[in-house]
Amino acid sequence: MTTEIIPLGTASAIPTRDRHLSAVALVRGGRTLLFDCGEGTQLQMIRAGVKPMRLQAVFISHFHGDHFYGLFGLLATLALLKRSHALTVVGPQGIADLVGRIPGLEPEWLPYPVDFVEMAPTMSKAIVLESSEYRVEARPLEHREFAAGFRFEEKRRPGRLRLERAHELGVKDYVDFRLLKQGKAVTSGGRRVEPDEVLDAPPPPASFAYVGDTRPCEAGEVLARGVDLLYHEATFGSEMADRARETGHSTAAEAARIAARSGARRLLIGHFSARYDDPARLVEEARVVFKNTDAADELKRYPLQAVEPAAGERPVAQPDAHRGEQ
Amino acid sequence: MTTEIIPLGTASAIPTRDRHLSAVALVRGGRTLLFDCGEGTQLQMIRAGVKPMRLQAVFISHFHGDHFYGLFGLLATLALLKRSHALTVVGPQGIADLVGRIPGLEPEWLPYPVDFVEMAPTMSKAIVLESSEYRVEARPLEHREFAAGFRFEEKRRPGRLRLERAHELGVKDYVDFRLLKQGKAVTSGGRRVEPDEVLDAPPPPASFAYVGDTRPCEAGEVLARGVDLLYHEATFGSEMADRARETGHSTAAEAARIAARSGARRLLIGHFSARYDDPARLVEEARVVFKNTDAADELKRYPLQAVEPAAGERPVAQPDAHRGEQ
Repeated sequence: MTTEIIPLGTASAIPTRDRHLSAVALVRGGRTLLFDCGEGTQLQMIRAGVKPMRLQAVFISHFHGDHFYGLFGLLATLALLKRSHALTVVGPQGIADLVGRIPGLEPEWLPYPVDFVEMAPTMSKAIVLESSEYRVEARPLEHREFAAGFRFEEKRRPGRLRLERAHELGVKDYVDFRLLKQGKAVTSGGRRVEPDEVLDAPPPPASFAYVGDTRPCEAGEVLARGVDLLYHEATFGSEMADRARETGHSTAAEAARIAARSGARRLLIGHFSARYDDPARLVEEARVVFKNTDAADELKRYPLQAVEPAAGERPVAQPDAHRGEQ
Repeated sequence: MTTEIIPLGTASAIPTRDRHLSAVALVRGGRTLLFDCGEGTQLQMIRAGVKPMRLQAVFISHFHGDHFYGLFGLLATLALLKRSHALTVVGPQGIADLVGRIPGLEPEWLPYPVDFVEMAPTMSKAIVLESSEYRVEARPLEHREFAAGFRFEEKRRPGRLRLERAHELGVKDYVDFRLLKQGKAVTSGGRRVEPDEVLDAPPPPASFAYVGDTRPCEAGEVLARGVDLLYHEATFGSEMADRARETGHSTAAEAARIAARSGARRLLIGHFSARYDDPARLVEEARVVFKNTDAADELKRYPLQAVEPAAGERPVAQPDAHRGEQ
């Protein structure tokens, strides 16, 4: 299962000639999750070849216009395309009411249901989307108003069944295959067959965190723990550290510190202030702290690849421990 | 005074890779009027070099998303740019309430006042903006819901004073100059001096009509009477005439008939259905009826040039007669 991260908009607040408003697509098995949806996102989706009908969920981090004014047009386009299957929209409390009042988006007009998942301003964490294959967790960050960050994480899946080996061991029944895939031993001709005798090593689960707008904070670090890819806002360079503090944003070096502390494998920075024509300087500042940093490149496809820690090596990320401690 | 018409978005309903959502800018003496404001209009303004701070008024024709979802981002950007002078927003009844409920656009948050001019669904015509130099008139068209068309028209201005000739006739006082410019005769050394002795011929007033979304209709024709440039929607070709009727839109040939009947000098068609990769065929169909037709080209600047009818020639357009009959 290939998963790709596609930054659609890397500008902050005001779009520029070269940069669009906040949105990042996660495309996985023909389905798309969209993190933030600034104005013009549906146009960027067209340019990226991300089909709006394949959209499964939209996550709105907060109610600053550059992060959600594109939701209206996107929902309207889905209606015009005659979508009939449900769409999940995760956002701050009040988002259902807000959307429902926009002419053209009243629930009785839309030809598809919208499942709104509202995040209360007082929430400390929440699983905002869960399927059999992955979950998305939200935590409140530190911004001027309620703003959430998100962590996408695949669930552990069993390895592929080595059919030939199973047959050699006399296991031929579908029910046994399913039990083995569920991690349970079966009996074949009086012999106990353990799952790891017939299953490949499980594919490592991939993870991704979307953190912004925010000051560098504990919640961002927790969301990013051990992820394969962290998208963190880096609105300013270090010369604007005071302004970052005043406005509830992060500098590139601060984003890099979160990446380093959380044990993320790769950092993409975005949400650049319009004052930076070229974010190269911000990348330089970040790399001093966290080497594997790049500026998020709009429309570029970043494969989300999980790597299994080598045997005996203590992994930086321990998803189960991470879950346990919450 | 140069006036230019700049189509910013010529798509209908759903944007395409090449065409953006509805918006047309009228730029005149460093100020801009914006007709409709589909999602992404502020980005198209950047690309067209149309400065948002110079915006004087936005006219929203109706409450279909492709015509107004870009208003939110534009208003937010003006706030971020710290605009302090008023902006006029003309739109259907309810627009003030609608905008005021959007997070980030509450009246108490915006650093500039918005003068909302609401068009009642029952209105038959209204002057929705008037300055010393021009006026904008709105009339309801024939669409699936209330939708207005607009006519921009410069007021007649006096011709330039020929200072040398005035001095020859002994007129030297500023007060006399002003009277002459107001069309009043003055007395100099016992001799009566008429305005046309010292003033150039008055520059012809320019006019523009923005008509869409609509069926071809009487109100569109009245708005377009004698204009130098008519922007009329032409969502479909003639093969889709039934669909145009059902959806409250016009075909290219229907738009051309309105141009011909109204005596418009030039027709730009836009609001093309996404099914037409290239609107060339629509232009062909329109030209059979009205020769001076082009497909509106996004970001192209169309000069709005008024032409004075030659002496003795009955002008196609008679702005004063037009006003008289209302």
